[in-house]
Amino acid sequence: MQQVLFPSHPVVAFLTDFGLRDGYVGVMKGIVLGIAPQAQLVDITHDISPQDIAAGAWMLGTCYRYFPLGTVYTCVVDPGVGSARRPIAVRAGDWFFVGPDNGLFSYVLTEETIYEAVVLSNSAYHLPQVSATFQGRDLFAPVAAYLARGVALSDLGAPIDPVSLRLLDLKYASRQKGRIEGHIVYIDHFGNLITNIPASMVPDLFSCAAIQLTFSSQQTIVTERRRFFAENSIQDELAAYPFVYIDSAGYVGIARQNGNAAATLGVRVGDVITLTIQA
Amino acid sequence: MQQVLFPSHPVVAFLTDFGLRDGYVGVMKGIVLGIAPQAQLVDITHDISPQDIAAGAWMLGTCYRYFPLGTVYTCVVDPGVGSARRPIAVRAGDWFFVGPDNGLFSYVLTEETIYEAVVLSNSAYHLPQVSATFQGRDLFAPVAAYLARGVALSDLGAPIDPVSLRLLDLKYASRQKGRIEGHIVYIDHFGNLITNIPASMVPDLFSCAAIQLTFSSQQTIVTERRRFFAENSIQDELAAYPFVYIDSAGYVGIARQNGNAAATLGVRVGDVITLTIQA
Amino acid sequence: MQQVLFPSHPVVAFLTDFGLRDGYVGVMKGIVLGIAPQAQLVDITHDISPQDIAAGAWMLGTCYRYFPLGTVYTCVVDPGVGSARRPIAVRAGDWFFVGPDNGLFSYVLTEETIYEAVVLSNSAYHLPQVSATFQGRDLFAPVAAYLARGVALSDLGAPIDPVSLRLLDLKYASRQKGRIEGHIVYIDHFGNLITNIPASMVPDLFSCAAIQLTFSSQQTIVTERRRFFAENSIQDELAAYPFVYIDSAGYVGIARQNGNAAATLGVRVGDVITLTIQA
Repeated sequence: MQQVLFPSHPVVAFLTDFGLRDGYVGVMKGIVLGIAPQAQLVDITHDISPQDIAAGAWMLGTCYRYFPLGTVYTCVVDPGVGSARRPIAVRAGDWFFVGPDNGLFSYVLTEETIYEAVVLSNSAYHLPQVSATFQGRDLFAPVAAYLARGVALSDLGAPIDPVSLRLLDLKYASRQKGRIEGHIVYIDHFGNLITNIPASMVPDLFSCAAIQLTFSSQQTIVTERRRFFAENSIQDELAAYPFVYIDSAGYVGIARQNGNAAATLGVRVGDVITLTIQA
Repeated sequence: MQQVLFPSHPVVAFLTDFGLRDGYVGVMKGIVLGIAPQAQLVDITHDISPQDIAAGAWMLGTCYRYFPLGTVYTCVVDPGVGSARRPIAVRAGDWFFVGPDNGLFSYVLTEETIYEAVVLSNSAYHLPQVSATFQGRDLFAPVAAYLARGVALSDLGAPIDPVSLRLLDLKYASRQKGRIEGHIVYIDHFGNLITNIPASMVPDLFSCAAIQLTFSSQQTIVTERRRFFAENSIQDELAAYPFVYIDSAGYVGIARQNGNAAATLGVRVGDVITLTIQA
Repeated sequence: MQQVLFPSHPVVAFLTDFGLRDGYVGVMKGIVLGIAPQAQLVDITHDISPQDIAAGAWMLGTCYRYFPLGTVYTCVVDPGVGSARRPIAVRAGDWFFVGPDNGLFSYVLTEETIYEAVVLSNSAYHLPQVSATFQGRDLFAPVAAYLARGVALSDLGAPIDPVSLRLLDLKYASRQKGRIEGHIVYIDHFGNLITNIPASMVPDLFSCAAIQLTFSSQQTIVTERRRFFAENSIQDELAAYPFVYIDSAGYVGIARQNGNAAATLGVRVGDVITLTIQA
């Protein structure tokens, strides 16, 4: 089996759509520290667009591998709070995941071995009163803290079959010879466009004769490619052009050096792109 | 008396109007860790509107109960920094509160037993130089850290009479038979409207025949009520209507499922509302 | 030589232009905690304008003195990531600084004794794979964590001559008798304008007969001066005027009480100002 996952400084990481303005996140952390005073608390993000489960799932998927073994991810993007969707905790890969069973863990569950999953039915590990509108505070935060303290997943509720866990209908990119179809899955703070085309699908990106990337939504054609942002920085004319690169999560991206590609190109999340590799 | 309030991992929680852009909050944390290296630092919020003492007081009031015993709240919304308003530390309920005596602690002081209050007159617990413009750094942060380390409140300065502490003129909701008058006290990140009508004032909210909520500022009448956001999610037509619910802090709120009620309704903080309960 | 700089709760402080929306900062923290589980993580800011090295340098310059001895500053404002600019770690004053050698440490390097500097050439202290686009994650975060754990600077890479470290062309204010020329270096969250005129250059600011502050960019003349924001708060008419004060970092600033001076005055970072002292 696995190595021991309960370190002396357990990490509890948070990903929500709560924003940082309202104290909701602070309250969750207060709850966690009341139960697990030695926990290390880390924010992944609280700026997922309200109720955007797909964006939350993507973000978690690009980040979770970088945290220590045993990290407890507390994830709440939960338009169905209070309804029939199940509150769950899952041990997948080397980590624990706590949140609603609504697809938020789609990438994790697809990419990692699922060792154990439970529905959070044991109220002994919840706050005494569970509201219908803020289960992040009343249920997910205390459960995460107990996991960080070493409580066994099986104590938190009834086991559930991993195959019953909710998965989003993830769209994958595809390649037919030199033609790759994908779409934009994320636009970051710098305005860089991230696609769902994994680097492993385009091993010839930099060795081929030429590339062409087109967007379904507009006219621009991107033909430049770079290994890093400042690669052509001496040539001023080229510097302003958008270019294709491999982003830090391992996917094809489109950026502009010292500029905002999304604003320039007018592209949105969900837009279809076609990348042509000319051997 | 009380139990010991000095844990091995003391929590210092912050609530300010400083924003996160300028390094002011980071500097306060640096100061705290220089004095109390083992402290757990938690942000409640730093996005109180500049100088909005009433909003800061409300936010603190909805959050403080959820933190561990002995948490030291460092709160700075302080338009009068440098003037005659007193810098104070208070032990109220199971927690400590450090900040300006300008009404920021109004809800806490009204709701909890006040065990002890001091004016921060002992400069041995301040930074060597106290500026006239950033007492969060020079005075409140070090005092909070010393409290977290277990320094007695009485060492921090001269005692003051709790009845002299500044309270805002808090507006309470009132009920006359089936008619409740209140107002909007907060609009959160999701656009949910939070009122000052406590759930305990409307035990019949869900059992009565019908409700009507009107805003003084405009025409919309809200007649739907829900226990949780997704309650009517199958009926698409109803789903878009604004509805009345009990928010997570225990007050009547108005929301729209997967939407922004504030933006739709054009309501502002301070607007008067009338809720009618039809038995 | 120096005292021991490796405390039991080492502080790792972060300053970047990554924003908090994308998980980049969270991932860096996950990396740090995997290597230095007991580290105290503090954000200075992540809202430096994208690629604005000068703003990042200024911000770091105003904050670093307030953190505990031995704090490891992990600073990433890095338009040249992946290019020839050197990744470095420096021990200056009582602290460690990790980031790109692009001028980001200009104030620190100018103000503090530089004890040691290395280029981060020892890949044993990096992630196994170093991307060309996110060295904050792959290189700076792990190096910072190893420093926090007590790894010697000299183990991290080859020594470099401190005089070779990149410095920005910092603009200093100057005084000729009663006439001081400077410029706006920062506008904070409250709209306060911060100049590069140190308080030590204007010891007569409050004792002189009168002052006049003019902006090259527009007509307004500021003649009021205050020791703190609420100083004239009783006189309503004066209260709304912009005034000169000494900001918390020790520089001349211009503010409006309970107002936003930058918005009112239409001033920008870089604007030249002239302050006249009338004896």
